[in-house]
Amino acid sequence: MTTTFNIQPLSRELAPAIQQRIDTRTKPLGSLGKLEAIALQAGLIQQSITPHLSAPRIAVFAGDHGAARAGVGAYPQEVTAQMVMNFIAGGAAINVLARQAGLDISVIDCGVASKVEGASRPGVEYVIAKQGLGTASYIEQAAMTHAQRDDAIAKGAELVRGWHAGGCNAIGFGEMGIGNTSTASLLTHFITGINLDMVIGRGAGLDDAGLARKRALLAQAAARVAGRTLSAQDALAEFGGFEVATLVGAFLGAAECGMLIVVDGFIVTSALLVAHAIHPAVLDYCVFAHGSAEPGHVAQLAHLGAEPLLQLGMRLGEGTGAAAAFPLIRAALACLNEMAGFADAGVSEASSA
Amino acid sequence: MTTTFNIQPLSRELAPAIQQRIDTRTKPLGSLGKLEAIALQAGLIQQSITPHLSAPRIAVFAGDHGAARAGVGAYPQEVTAQMVMNFIAGGAAINVLARQAGLDISVIDCGVASKVEGASRPGVEYVIAKQGLGTASYIEQAAMTHAQRDDAIAKGAELVRGWHAGGCNAIGFGEMGIGNTSTASLLTHFITGINLDMVIGRGAGLDDAGLARKRALLAQAAARVAGRTLSAQDALAEFGGFEVATLVGAFLGAAECGMLIVVDGFIVTSALLVAHAIHPAVLDYCVFAHGSAEPGHVAQLAHLGAEPLLQLGMRLGEGTGAAAAFPLIRAALACLNEMAGFADAGVSEASSA
Repeated sequence: MTTTFNIQPLSRELAPAIQQRIDTRTKPLGSLGKLEAIALQAGLIQQSITPHLSAPRIAVFAGDHGAARAGVGAYPQEVTAQMVMNFIAGGAAINVLARQAGLDISVIDCGVASKVEGASRPGVEYVIAKQGLGTASYIEQAAMTHAQRDDAIAKGAELVRGWHAGGCNAIGFGEMGIGNTSTASLLTHFITGINLDMVIGRGAGLDDAGLARKRALLAQAAARVAGRTLSAQDALAEFGGFEVATLVGAFLGAAECGMLIVVDGFIVTSALLVAHAIHPAVLDYCVFAHGSAEPGHVAQLAHLGAEPLLQLGMRLGEGTGAAAAFPLIRAALACLNEMAGFADAGVSEASSA
Repeated sequence: MTTTFNIQPLSRELAPAIQQRIDTRTKPLGSLGKLEAIALQAGLIQQSITPHLSAPRIAVFAGDHGAARAGVGAYPQEVTAQMVMNFIAGGAAINVLARQAGLDISVIDCGVASKVEGASRPGVEYVIAKQGLGTASYIEQAAMTHAQRDDAIAKGAELVRGWHAGGCNAIGFGEMGIGNTSTASLLTHFITGINLDMVIGRGAGLDDAGLARKRALLAQAAARVAGRTLSAQDALAEFGGFEVATLVGAFLGAAECGMLIVVDGFIVTSALLVAHAIHPAVLDYCVFAHGSAEPGHVAQLAHLGAEPLLQLGMRLGEGTGAAAAFPLIRAALACLNEMAGFADAGVSEASSA
């Protein structure tokens, strides 16, 4: 990897002061549950006892996969471009959820296989950062070159630095790419060491026959590199996803900028596995939004020691889990900032606790 | 019970049309998970394929419990009044979460043991509907008379009808009352038949000694009525909570008005157990917001066949779980109303599903 990152593990120096503020708000000790943990983490990221969200944003990274033409997914490959145009036009689930949560979105074409028609407009930024017209099929060859991988990582970091320079201090990551649960399964297998079959699921809706075909194709892809020891970065180049590689750079760039990162589901977390292998401290900046129905997501979360905020049975990617979690993150910070303290409000504390 | 309610089980006539609209939005079939179930339910409640939230509100019912003076809880009884004043002043968790979710709140004094100072102001309505200065201690006698119970039920329904007449079609219920997890445990035991010890928890933060004392006191209360067969309404009068009785009427009134009801945690669900025993169809109108850390909540949900949206480890009542869930409910309806369809957006459907 040519780009280098300077990612600081979070200093916990301010933790007692933030915890003290949390504990003196007018509520039983610990009673806001996971919202308290988020408030503490945000305070540590921002080194502030009054952390706040500034210009929070969802970034959706899109790309096509050569392997999709072999039939790993339920939808035809052209759906990637169609959905990217839907994002730009504002009609997808991520648009609705982002609007509801007061988030602008950026849609990044990292390597969609066809030309995407559309232009930025208020609330929706469209960025062309193509590494190619889809990856090569990893069933026969490496999905991308090391140069493409490194360019994608650099581009992801550069984009995030731009948003950060524009005032954004919290970002949710999403993705779109027909076939990319297969890439996520392969990355999860090679990085965590968990049996490949355990981390393959139905993606956007495969039937039993489709799932069997997906299993066979991914086993073939894994067999292609049998006997080699792959680093996380090697696995990324082998099994690709230009959108996944760009996401790796986005994770590392966001952590370097000290941003709060809201992690969506299975595919976004596969990019985090790679980023984490490069710089483990990236995890300090991550809030896990939603537990996916994909079986591999559980394996990823266990590997990272992470627990998601939400379990809504969602499985459409796009950053929808991240967008759904943002109101809770905003609420967690607002509780820290806006709730009265016991003393100020004249409320008695517990007589036994 | 003197008030009668006309609660219609939901007609499912429109279900195919609503489901058809959900299924033709640009996303894999079923991929919005629980949000799709909420959109369908809201559509059935409103008999519309484009359901919407109008003037949604949180109502917090407060009351004191004679048994609290015997030491069933972690906080002194005066905290009920202090917290009600905190609600009116805007400094409590429910205020913050309701503001974040764009909800006005109503605070109803159903029987706080002391005078509460405060007045309505924009966004916070304060209602005095006292049935008494706290209930009698159910350890020695019935918490309230049947007349008080019936008045409280009538009052709860009357309040909800007023909000509904003012344009509100969705309401989240919350509560405040030192000692009211004990009432909820007793009601849950007598209505579901589950062993009392199984449904007693640490409330707002009891230590082991406090929990043992609570167990002993509640066993004593239950022994007082040994040998009698209690209906849900009998149990309500015996173990009371003026706020719980008022909530029972609020549930029944809201269902009668055809409102979407967002159910908070353990105590609010204990009121729903009573309402459900009177009119099972009330359940059709309920969305369960948050799974409480109280063990009795699991028993309640199993009894009602319900599953909550959120599991955030929250345990402070006030309606905070309901307020935390509202953005997701709003988002579910917005997805149904605002997402593009496959045909309109020119997106191909699944080739195998």
